[in-house]
Amino acid sequence: MIRLYHHPLCPQSRFVRLMLGEYGLEAELIEELAGARRHDFLLINPAGNTPVMIDEDGTRIVGAGPIAEYLDETHGLRLGAHRLLPPGSVARAEVRRLTDWFNGKFFEEVSGHLTREKVFKRFLSSQQGGGAPDMAAVRVARRNVLYHLAYLGFLTAHHNWLAGEAMTLADLAAAAHLSVVDFLGDVPWDEDHGAKLWYAMMKSRPGFRPLLADRVRGLQPSAVYADLDF
Amino acid sequence: MIRLYHHPLCPQSRFVRLMLGEYGLEAELIEELAGARRHDFLLINPAGNTPVMIDEDGTRIVGAGPIAEYLDETHGLRLGAHRLLPPGSVARAEVRRLTDWFNGKFFEEVSGHLTREKVFKRFLSSQQGGGAPDMAAVRVARRNVLYHLAYLGFLTAHHNWLAGEAMTLADLAAAAHLSVVDFLGDVPWDEDHGAKLWYAMMKSRPGFRPLLADRVRGLQPSAVYADLDF
Repeated sequence: MIRLYHHPLCPQSRFVRLMLGEYGLEAELIEELAGARRHDFLLINPAGNTPVMIDEDGTRIVGAGPIAEYLDETHGLRLGAHRLLPPGSVARAEVRRLTDWFNGKFFEEVSGHLTREKVFKRFLSSQQGGGAPDMAAVRVARRNVLYHLAYLGFLTAHHNWLAGEAMTLADLAAAAHLSVVDFLGDVPWDEDHGAKLWYAMMKSRPGFRPLLADRVRGLQPSAVYADLDF
Repeated sequence: MIRLYHHPLCPQSRFVRLMLGEYGLEAELIEELAGARRHDFLLINPAGNTPVMIDEDGTRIVGAGPIAEYLDETHGLRLGAHRLLPPGSVARAEVRRLTDWFNGKFFEEVSGHLTREKVFKRFLSSQQGGGAPDMAAVRVARRNVLYHLAYLGFLTAHHNWLAGEAMTLADLAAAAHLSVVDFLGDVPWDEDHGAKLWYAMMKSRPGFRPLLADRVRGLQPSAVYADLDF
C-alpha cells in the first residue's frame, strides 16, 4: 500500500490526499510534524516538510508538485476524460499556474500563516519555534484571504471549475488550502457567492470525506467545517 | 520570437534563461520589477512575479515550474539523451524534488532574502516596500547558504550532476540561484570544494554567458562573478 507522510492540517498534504481519492488509491497515513525535524524523517526528506509519498515499490516522492506529476505520469491515463492534468501543453500550463498559485502564493499569504500560528506552534517546543500565535500574522492572513476569494469568484464566473470546464489539479489544490483555513474558521464565505458554490461542489466529492472527518488534539473545527450545506 | 518577462537578478528568471539556452531558443527579454506591480504586467500575471514566458504563438506560460514543464513537453524530445527531465517517472520526480529545493527552499532561505534586501528594495519606492536593506535578513541568508553549499557538495560527491550522471533541470535551477548570490558576493566558495567544481562546470556552459554579462544599474558584481577560474 502507498504510504503518505502528512499532517492532517498541512494543506499540501491534503492536496495529495484529494488526488489519491480521485485516483481511487488508498494510502496508509503517517502523521508527521514538519517543524519538529524528526531525525528519521529528515533521512527520508532532508527538506523536512510534508508531504512525502512512498509508493508500493518503496519509491520515495517528495513534495506536492512532484507527487502530482508522478501520479499523473503513472495513473493519469486511467482517468480518461477526467484526467487531472488535461491533454495539451497550454492547458496543462494553466492548471500548473493555478496549482502553484495555491501551493505557493496562497500558502505564503494565507494558509501558511494560519497553520503555523494557530496549529503547528501549539505542538512545537519553544526551541523548535513553538509558542503563542503571532496575532499580527493571523490578521494579515485574514485580510489576504479576501482577495483570494475574489479571485476564485472571478475564475468560477467564467466556467464551472478553476481552469475550465473540467475539474483539475488546480481545484484540488485550492480546495485543500481553503479546507484548512475553513477548519480554523477563517473563510468569510459570504464575501463571494461564486467561490462558495464552487467550494460546496468540491466538498461533496467522495475524496473530501476523510478530510472532513479529520480531528486534531485540542482544536475544534469551525461549526460549518463538515457541513455540506454551509 | 519567444518573449520573457524577467529581471536580470531574479533567480527563477535566470533558471528559465538557462533552459532556453540549453534548448537553443532565443528570447526577447523584457525587464520587469515584480515588486512594482505594474498594471499592464498584472494583467499578464495576476500573481505579479517573474518569470512569464510568451511563446511565439502568443501563449502565456506563468512561473518557473510551469515553464520548465511546458518546454519539456514541447521541446524536450529534441534534446535526446540530454533531455533536462530524464525518462522514467522516478528519475523525473527526483529532478523535480531538487528543482523545487532551489526554486522554493533555497529561495526562501537564501536568494529571496538577498535579492529583496540588496537589489529590489533599491528600485522600489517606500510605499512599494523599498528602502535600506534589513541586515538581519542578509545575515540569516549568509548563514543559510553554508548548509546549502554542503548539500550541493553531498550530492556531487556521488555523481557529476545533482540528480545523477546527466545534467538536468535541477542543475540549472541550483546554478541560477547560486549565480545571483555570487553576483552579490555572498557565496563562500572555499567552504565546499565539490560544490565549487560543480559550479565551475555550470558556469562554463554556453547558456551561462549572457548571465555573466548581466549588469544592473548601481550594482557592481563581485570580483569572481564572471571569472570561469574563480
